[in-house]
Amino acid sequence: MSVSLGELAVRFGCELRGDPELRVRHVATLAAAGPEALAFLANPKYRPLLAQSRAGAVVLAAADAEGVARPVLIASNPYAAYARMAAVLHAPPALPPGVHPTAWVDPLAQVADSAHVAAHVSIGAGARIGARAAIGPGCVLEAGVEIAEDVQLVARVVVCRGVRIGARTVVQPGAVIGGDGFGYAPERGAWVKVPQVGSVAIGADVEIGANTTIDRGAIEDTVIEDGVKLDNQIQIGHNVRIGAHSALAACVGVSGSTTIGKRCQIGGAVGIVGHLSICDDVAVTGLSMVSHSINEPGVYSSGLPAIPAAEWRRAVARLHRLDRMAGQVAALGKQLNRTQDD
Amino acid sequence: MSVSLGELAVRFGCELRGDPELRVRHVATLAAAGPEALAFLANPKYRPLLAQSRAGAVVLAAADAEGVARPVLIASNPYAAYARMAAVLHAPPALPPGVHPTAWVDPLAQVADSAHVAAHVSIGAGARIGARAAIGPGCVLEAGVEIAEDVQLVARVVVCRGVRIGARTVVQPGAVIGGDGFGYAPERGAWVKVPQVGSVAIGADVEIGANTTIDRGAIEDTVIEDGVKLDNQIQIGHNVRIGAHSALAACVGVSGSTTIGKRCQIGGAVGIVGHLSICDDVAVTGLSMVSHSINEPGVYSSGLPAIPAAEWRRAVARLHRLDRMAGQVAALGKQLNRTQDD
Amino acid sequence: MSVSLGELAVRFGCELRGDPELRVRHVATLAAAGPEALAFLANPKYRPLLAQSRAGAVVLAAADAEGVARPVLIASNPYAAYARMAAVLHAPPALPPGVHPTAWVDPLAQVADSAHVAAHVSIGAGARIGARAAIGPGCVLEAGVEIAEDVQLVARVVVCRGVRIGARTVVQPGAVIGGDGFGYAPERGAWVKVPQVGSVAIGADVEIGANTTIDRGAIEDTVIEDGVKLDNQIQIGHNVRIGAHSALAACVGVSGSTTIGKRCQIGGAVGIVGHLSICDDVAVTGLSMVSHSINEPGVYSSGLPAIPAAEWRRAVARLHRLDRMAGQVAALGKQLNRTQDD
Repeated sequence: MSVSLGELAVRFGCELRGDPELRVRHVATLAAAGPEALAFLANPKYRPLLAQSRAGAVVLAAADAEGVARPVLIASNPYAAYARMAAVLHAPPALPPGVHPTAWVDPLAQVADSAHVAAHVSIGAGARIGARAAIGPGCVLEAGVEIAEDVQLVARVVVCRGVRIGARTVVQPGAVIGGDGFGYAPERGAWVKVPQVGSVAIGADVEIGANTTIDRGAIEDTVIEDGVKLDNQIQIGHNVRIGAHSALAACVGVSGSTTIGKRCQIGGAVGIVGHLSICDDVAVTGLSMVSHSINEPGVYSSGLPAIPAAEWRRAVARLHRLDRMAGQVAALGKQLNRTQDD
Repeated sequence: MSVSLGELAVRFGCELRGDPELRVRHVATLAAAGPEALAFLANPKYRPLLAQSRAGAVVLAAADAEGVARPVLIASNPYAAYARMAAVLHAPPALPPGVHPTAWVDPLAQVADSAHVAAHVSIGAGARIGARAAIGPGCVLEAGVEIAEDVQLVARVVVCRGVRIGARTVVQPGAVIGGDGFGYAPERGAWVKVPQVGSVAIGADVEIGANTTIDRGAIEDTVIEDGVKLDNQIQIGHNVRIGAHSALAACVGVSGSTTIGKRCQIGGAVGIVGHLSICDDVAVTGLSMVSHSINEPGVYSSGLPAIPAAEWRRAVARLHRLDRMAGQVAALGKQLNRTQDD
Repeated sequence: MSVSLGELAVRFGCELRGDPELRVRHVATLAAAGPEALAFLANPKYRPLLAQSRAGAVVLAAADAEGVARPVLIASNPYAAYARMAAVLHAPPALPPGVHPTAWVDPLAQVADSAHVAAHVSIGAGARIGARAAIGPGCVLEAGVEIAEDVQLVARVVVCRGVRIGARTVVQPGAVIGGDGFGYAPERGAWVKVPQVGSVAIGADVEIGANTTIDRGAIEDTVIEDGVKLDNQIQIGHNVRIGAHSALAACVGVSGSTTIGKRCQIGGAVGIVGHLSICDDVAVTGLSMVSHSINEPGVYSSGLPAIPAAEWRRAVARLHRLDRMAGQVAALGKQLNRTQDD
């Protein structure tokens, strides 16, 4: 579809410098944009691209608008404004309400008339699917799940028995929500499975990435609060709680019974040990291990940057012998003091 | 359902202190339990909760039973006893025998009359499904797979051609068992695929977590022995062997042809290099890298705890220059000895 | 099936020492091979096995052929030659052309007559499936996807809207190609989703492992060039480009907008930060973190080998105090020089 710059300015509260009748049809990068494309500038690093850009219009901050030849839409938060405009220009096709003939819905399940249930979906007894929810191809919804209005399960998502998902939450393909937590009692060199009788409660406006797994609680529920964003291939253990609007990058693992505060940002492949508490507004950089509770907001790290392998091998050998080096340093100190006393 | 304390005591060999006619209906934590709930105390850390608990009964060790006002079930291994009682109180609904109308079963496959085959399952030629096995919605069983009695494939599990799964093994949703191993022969800057003609043999009483992947062998089989517990998002390379009753936490990766002994415990996100041998009774703490064979039982580590980012950056800079510091220390020693000889 | 040694020699350009009429029926290891098995020797480490082997024939290099009693097929690249012979001996059963009755194909999709579409597959409007492509059970192909000739999607693969996959590419079960990238604009303590309007372009002769995820681009495409090999459980962020014939081992994570060159080899569980550039012919060893661009071919590392936990704890304590030790060393130097000046 196409939208006029005037409409975008009014709808998203931007100042327009340019012809309100001009129309854009799609988004593009500053470098690739043509006259029908909407581009944006949020990172000053890309400012040099502005002069050459052939974009039909550029969303940017007032500070970047001076002397720009192209039409501009001035926003206090250009990236957020761009995001909303892109959602208008690239609105996904509406999915038809109703249940696909190849889907299977248990007679005791309730599916809203306005919901979309795609091919090869199965929905168990007692499940409730809310208004305008979209259940994509191959999804499995076990008995008693509750899917609120406007939820999107893109494709092949598994939602296990009794799991609840809040309004407008989006789940990417392959995610598994509510599989059994990892709980076993040791007994004479073997393991006795501990039934995982809790569930999972997902808030509203959450996004869950492809092939991410969120385990059900052992006794009480695993909880993902409103607005949390989980990237792909994340593992959330049983009875974890993640505070509102926290964002976890791909491949993070959070062990059981750990609580993460609100507005935290966890980098890729971070591992968080179980039974910890992390306060609000904590950032952890990629590939770090969080092995103790964190009570102070701030940035935490333990990821090691790669260097040429030969240098690294020497550093590791030294690291494994650091105790010895510390001893040598202490001995030198003593020896030196004796020398001076001579 | 509900069970009397007397029945629990008799059935699981506990000493009951309290009214055998009292009934419990579900499990709960000590803190949340009401009069119809069964709770347990296994970790002394939670002992303070005992006094306030309103639980209908508490499973605990004799040492913790003194002066407890609530009815107690005394067990030598309270956690294991609790696990078995919870399985009685929270028995999953029985699944009806038979093949769902939307499932597709190859005419040359054999499915036991007592097995449950759910919606949208496909079962290939020559596959054999044992008595009381439960094949959940969306599972794909390729040709020639052998599923023993009482196996549960929860949902959307893929079992590739010829894979064998032992009795009572449980596989969580999204797991893939028997995909091709990662084998390529380098040739003139490109790769020639090496056919992966081995299979996977899974023992009895194994549990495999959500979205875990176990590759088929290159020539011989990948082997998971009896009682092994694999958490979510684990990757097992081709021709790996994991010894009986070993437990691997989430996100572990085991590279090809490595052998792990019996009763090992591998922490979350540990990476194990290929072609290694790890003996019985080894524990590896989370986020460690095992790059050499381990021949002594014990605990091994290389995970780095996160600290404030600014401190960490300084430590890393020093680590990358450790060789230099070692040189300085040696030089100081020499210099000092010369000084003394003056 | 069985093949004569003469046929193998002619077909794959090997020198045969032995009876060309002899036939082999399957492959095996040198140790396990019987008279009907074809074995190979590529790694000198296994040379001692040659004398005892009962293999019907062994594929090896000229240098290893001297004095071998068994029939041998001499190749300049024995492992690659073995790979091709194994593909003949263990050719997968041909899949029947046509669409399975339980599959659902949108009337506006085009499926080549010679393509195989298995049970419970769904194919969206405008999708195009090429000649001899095999779409395995439970795969979901969204609208507008383009699958070239001879592609194999083994089972339960999700290919999201508009993704393009090149000829002969193989995708293992559970992989998700084209899920939304992780893009959100921060706004007043919450996140605004940035529509991911790019797609994914996969080249020819690529292999993608089980449960691997490749995100679609934010504006432009994510690109996997020809001949790239991706192992299981890999995460590729939006707008990443991976150069031809690079191989990534399992559990690797590549963050958004990073470019990896040609013929790179990335070890297991390596994490690569976003917006970096890695040149051609770079190798990174397992569990390393790449946090800066790499402009020189070579081997890079930062993985730490596990050692006994008690030793490790001491080393970590020292590492966290390295700054202090460096200060002590400097102070000793100064003090010593003063001493000498006395």
